[in-house]
Amino acid sequence: MNKTGLDYVHGYAPVALSRLQDQARTLADLLHHDTRYPPGAHVLEAGCGAGAQTVLLAERSPQATFTCVDVNESSLATARDRCTGLNNARFIRADVRSLPFPDATFDHVFVCFVLEHLARPDTALDELIRTLRPGGTLTAIEGDHGSVLMHPDNRASRAAIACQVRLQRRARGEPMIGRRLFPLLAAAGLGSVHVEPRTVYADATRPGLVDGFVHRTFTAMIADIEDAAVDAGWVTRATFAEGIAGLRRCTEPDGAFAYTFFKAVGVRPEAPPR
Amino acid sequence: MNKTGLDYVHGYAPVALSRLQDQARTLADLLHHDTRYPPGAHVLEAGCGAGAQTVLLAERSPQATFTCVDVNESSLATARDRCTGLNNARFIRADVRSLPFPDATFDHVFVCFVLEHLARPDTALDELIRTLRPGGTLTAIEGDHGSVLMHPDNRASRAAIACQVRLQRRARGEPMIGRRLFPLLAAAGLGSVHVEPRTVYADATRPGLVDGFVHRTFTAMIADIEDAAVDAGWVTRATFAEGIAGLRRCTEPDGAFAYTFFKAVGVRPEAPPR
Repeated sequence: MNKTGLDYVHGYAPVALSRLQDQARTLADLLHHDTRYPPGAHVLEAGCGAGAQTVLLAERSPQATFTCVDVNESSLATARDRCTGLNNARFIRADVRSLPFPDATFDHVFVCFVLEHLARPDTALDELIRTLRPGGTLTAIEGDHGSVLMHPDNRASRAAIACQVRLQRRARGEPMIGRRLFPLLAAAGLGSVHVEPRTVYADATRPGLVDGFVHRTFTAMIADIEDAAVDAGWVTRATFAEGIAGLRRCTEPDGAFAYTFFKAVGVRPEAPPR
Repeated sequence: MNKTGLDYVHGYAPVALSRLQDQARTLADLLHHDTRYPPGAHVLEAGCGAGAQTVLLAERSPQATFTCVDVNESSLATARDRCTGLNNARFIRADVRSLPFPDATFDHVFVCFVLEHLARPDTALDELIRTLRPGGTLTAIEGDHGSVLMHPDNRASRAAIACQVRLQRRARGEPMIGRRLFPLLAAAGLGSVHVEPRTVYADATRPGLVDGFVHRTFTAMIADIEDAAVDAGWVTRATFAEGIAGLRRCTEPDGAFAYTFFKAVGVRPEAPPR
């Protein structure tokens, strides 16, 4: 998922917006419903991007304060704009791999759709944990592009998704990092690590997820890489188009689509992690 | 999954049995916790096999009565033996494709790990729905062999799983039927169809699932087809062995494994389904 993965309610006619927002919330609920921070907690959101998750976090924990960092200034501008109504989030430009905060600054750390983009998620975790007080939690949420289930299944769609995987790996990211969260957090020295799969499932009875997740998030993300995949010589334009059509086919009344995210929480032990 | 898929607590030393039974229950809970039938309900369990699910169903709904059918007499003998302590389940030999019951006999129908083995799950559903009273529910649970996520990922393991898929398809079954439950039930004329993914996730913090599901259920099932897969010329014995080792590798402390089942419930409308 890119950082705007949850940002799929824009562009609808006002008449449909409310219903779709409600249903779009089901994805946010699936991922975030159990992330709530107590009054007074200082939380680092590492790699906040355009603030899609910040809004959800800050609304759910109105008496916690969020320090949200991202390396990209234009994303931060969007995030600030999106969060103008919130008084418990501040935004700072910083690289999650080298944070401008003393050790043990935060009570909790939250990182969502970020580790997948890093060549060294392990050292990034070390840096995040450095800023976390002993006893505080780190929450990580990531997707896994190996988890797509389509009905009808479609070979061209799988080829197009494989191009996304190759592209992300070429950029030294790991799009199948979801399944690896347990060993990553455990190796970083966190204790009580608990990982849960969170599977988004969309069929005709869930039009908000069909439209908001399958069309406007996942298929849109794959469609975005058409030129890069064709230019790399990994797929023909015809096959890629067939792959996109195959993804859309899953959203017809007799189709189905599933994608699994993983959510992990670990606790920084009282002794330094390593 | 074969019909003994949940039958994985046998063969342990007594000292560990209680703990492992508790944890094995977590898979049963994942799949069955929300299947409870009211007092007096007559339920058909179609394709009960050796009764692994029957025990769980009948214990959860002690005042409902279960009519459990299977085409295999020796499975039924095992099921009867396993259910001797239960007074609300009876076992009858019958083919789910041609049931010896009048129309609208049952208040509810339950079918688990059965449709995957049938060449025509659609006509089997028609027959099941014929025996269901209008307003009654049909519950279907199936796995999906396309849903396996391994860490570390392993090409040979995926090749071995692909052999299982080919074998089952050669026998005219469909091992990726889980994702298809929504269109199948909807096309059969059921209303209010609701499908949920149920993902089994196992890492080192869940030793009962690691041992009970990854080792003794999934890996054991794949290991069982070694000869058939090698004889068919689909894989070398060396690659198959590497695949089994790869599955076992996921159960080490830095590994992880996920598999997604789908659970579907639909209601027979008051008008005949079609």
